[in-house]
Amino acid sequence: MNDWTGLRRDERDVATWDIEVDVLVVGYGCAGVCAAIEAREAGAEVLILERAGGPGGTSINSGGFLYLGGGTALQKALGYDDSPENMFRYMMAACGPAPDEALIASYCEGSTAHFDWIVSHGVPYKESFFPGAHEPFHSDDGLVFSGSEHVHPFNEIAAPAPRGHAPQSVRDKGALFMNKLIAKAASVGVRAAYQSRVDSLVQASDGSVIGVVASTLEGEQRIRARKGVVLTAGGFIWNDEMLNRYAPLLTQCKHKVGTENDDGLGIRLGLAVGGEAIRMDAGDVSMAIFPPNSLRHGIFVNRYAQRFLNEDVYFGRAGETVLFHQEGRAYLVIDDEYFGRPESFPVEIAAVGETIAELEAELEFPKGALQQTVGFYNEHAARGEDPLFHKGNGYVTPIAKPPFGAIDLSTENLIYSAFTLGGLRVDASGRVQTASFESIPGLYGAGRTTSGIAKQGYSSGMSLGDGSFFGRAAGRHAAARRP
Amino acid sequence: MNDWTGLRRDERDVATWDIEVDVLVVGYGCAGVCAAIEAREAGAEVLILERAGGPGGTSINSGGFLYLGGGTALQKALGYDDSPENMFRYMMAACGPAPDEALIASYCEGSTAHFDWIVSHGVPYKESFFPGAHEPFHSDDGLVFSGSEHVHPFNEIAAPAPRGHAPQSVRDKGALFMNKLIAKAASVGVRAAYQSRVDSLVQASDGSVIGVVASTLEGEQRIRARKGVVLTAGGFIWNDEMLNRYAPLLTQCKHKVGTENDDGLGIRLGLAVGGEAIRMDAGDVSMAIFPPNSLRHGIFVNRYAQRFLNEDVYFGRAGETVLFHQEGRAYLVIDDEYFGRPESFPVEIAAVGETIAELEAELEFPKGALQQTVGFYNEHAARGEDPLFHKGNGYVTPIAKPPFGAIDLSTENLIYSAFTLGGLRVDASGRVQTASFESIPGLYGAGRTTSGIAKQGYSSGMSLGDGSFFGRAAGRHAAARRP
Repeated sequence: MNDWTGLRRDERDVATWDIEVDVLVVGYGCAGVCAAIEAREAGAEVLILERAGGPGGTSINSGGFLYLGGGTALQKALGYDDSPENMFRYMMAACGPAPDEALIASYCEGSTAHFDWIVSHGVPYKESFFPGAHEPFHSDDGLVFSGSEHVHPFNEIAAPAPRGHAPQSVRDKGALFMNKLIAKAASVGVRAAYQSRVDSLVQASDGSVIGVVASTLEGEQRIRARKGVVLTAGGFIWNDEMLNRYAPLLTQCKHKVGTENDDGLGIRLGLAVGGEAIRMDAGDVSMAIFPPNSLRHGIFVNRYAQRFLNEDVYFGRAGETVLFHQEGRAYLVIDDEYFGRPESFPVEIAAVGETIAELEAELEFPKGALQQTVGFYNEHAARGEDPLFHKGNGYVTPIAKPPFGAIDLSTENLIYSAFTLGGLRVDASGRVQTASFESIPGLYGAGRTTSGIAKQGYSSGMSLGDGSFFGRAAGRHAAARRP
Repeated sequence: MNDWTGLRRDERDVATWDIEVDVLVVGYGCAGVCAAIEAREAGAEVLILERAGGPGGTSINSGGFLYLGGGTALQKALGYDDSPENMFRYMMAACGPAPDEALIASYCEGSTAHFDWIVSHGVPYKESFFPGAHEPFHSDDGLVFSGSEHVHPFNEIAAPAPRGHAPQSVRDKGALFMNKLIAKAASVGVRAAYQSRVDSLVQASDGSVIGVVASTLEGEQRIRARKGVVLTAGGFIWNDEMLNRYAPLLTQCKHKVGTENDDGLGIRLGLAVGGEAIRMDAGDVSMAIFPPNSLRHGIFVNRYAQRFLNEDVYFGRAGETVLFHQEGRAYLVIDDEYFGRPESFPVEIAAVGETIAELEAELEFPKGALQQTVGFYNEHAARGEDPLFHKGNGYVTPIAKPPFGAIDLSTENLIYSAFTLGGLRVDASGRVQTASFESIPGLYGAGRTTSGIAKQGYSSGMSLGDGSFFGRAAGRHAAARRP
């Protein structure tokens, strides 16, 4: 079986169908369950095929956040001002380069209604704000800053508003989120088959996708989808060969966020029938040294002993910057006052010194290079200022109390967490697009099988966010389709 | 006509053929002409289809360099030591991230024989070395450093050897190169048709590509290719929509290196039959402020008044670094001793000052930031040292003689030259590959339609280099094919 004969089958080569449904959903994560519920509630017969032994995908093990705003019920209840326009400004600035304006506009406009839909479909949120930063937290608070809204330069582009909507659970927020939606799907009559892998999309001579061929527990099944096929099969962080070809820098990240089924099959199926995959180099890259947030009093320095970023940013922005723009090498220089052990992963202390000069020598920087950087920083920090990088949020204090330390932030020695952001190009209805901006009739996609709202510049909650949002859009559009 | 019904046609939908040849070449640039000559010399009937009104493509207006080494006849004649292994070390370090080892190994091993082939097919080279750097030069010298072989860090990774092989012509080196090969192609019986655009590849049910449908001066023609189709149709720098989707940062570069036919059609044709396009974000980005090379005595500083690169690098490495890693913003700070007007494009002087402090204020850097950077540089430059960035080659001198100036290197205000490096994935025989590392029978590619030896980290001569080299490989393999 070859890609060109396998991933795509011509209608003329499929004589009979074993099963017929209206909407077939490929992959049972958050995008899939939302597509399925929406299509089913619109009256369609829906079947989800999932490769794993049960539902949930990567979403069920995720942090469970939805990145939503524009004035959601939860934002309003907690007194945070936001508007679709304000959210749009943030996302267009943060989610680039060249974020998809149409997807983001649709997402921002529909965000408040989407939150209501999620709540009405069973996911509970507590009306309380978590005052820490955007890292994983262990309380059942409902709202948190989950991106870089409140830090430079974004706090000058749009009014900062917290948009991380977290299900009401101290731990396993992703499981709560998914289990509620999975239960809902079952209750409305969505059918699901597990250990079922889609091997091929079946394409008619007019280009439309009319079904799939799948390997199931009953053997090969030819399944006709009268209205549409929705690809929600995850990204490709677990496919080393695809990573090497498309996004080689991500191979430096030791923690792959996903399941083994994030091997890009959904993307490859879409490509095989003429879909277009874009921004395949992009990824979310988290440098999870926070908490403790006290470390943000330190400074990031690159391999030239220079600062390069305000240290109060979302850890994804920090990770992206080091991996993509600093050749994967950096340190965090910190004093004894604010040092603390990172909670998520072990770290290596690259150097310790009673003076910055000692630290500098131990790190093998040229004499004076680090002293100069720290001296400039301290001079302004003594006045609470950071004129070069505009760190804020109370973290600007001189690095003054010995001993001084440098935490190794290199991708070689620190565990970076990553997943892919590139994938099939879809429109705001979730329709898979060709290179000529045409929709392939009957083919939809959502979640990390697609290139979504974050082309780069990820904030927590954007994957469950666009997966659930455009999954619903796809399910709705497919259910309404009259081929 | 849609992409999914247009770019690919099923064999069953093509009843008859208007023309039959052995090898059909799509695009008449350097990759195409080399594929055609090689196939023809192996006995195949060959037809080249070209969209423009005549042959040459982008190559005919190029600098005409071939990046070759490993001990070519020209290198040897001029006393430069090189070996395939040495060349391989440089390319694996420079042409990344994650360059294609198989392509590069084949290229390095075959490089000396390829030079002989080019010479034997009519292109003249003078046995003389151009001692300047790697920018366009107006002499008829044959050999030049055309990359970053002789600068940090590459001069520590591999023994520096000049590898830019320039045809013997004071000007219009690309035209000389192409015209000699075009004449050769005609003399061996390669046929060509102009104003002929391939609209579709015709694919058999076993996946093999068996011909094309083209719009020609005689109307639509169905052309059977008994042995193979070779896609050598250029990149996509002239397709703004593709750039926006795949390589949005390249849209910042005001000078598009290519012709209007570099609209990605070759890539899209390959995708339509199951080929894989990789590294679509990559590009060659030249910041052509050199010559005069005296400017290399200055220092690049980023928007934080920090240095970020040794200023003796190839101008492509400088351009890539600013565009991809410095948000497209930088300055060159230079003193009166070494200032000179860039010869290629007009530049804006962002600031002038009698002191560095004045320059700093005019550039709106925080007080002390630029003074500190220049101070550190000058302190070491006084001893001829550059401990942070390792500039060398005689360019390390203090920035000391007033007035001081800052040339604006931002992509907004300086003309950057760019072309795309992403494209179809091929093997060392030029066979177009699927996502599963299978070859599509009968389909070949070379040149900027493909992702070649430089995934990034371009050096001058790599495009004519890999286009001509793998074009030949494709023509050879196709001619020998027995479907």
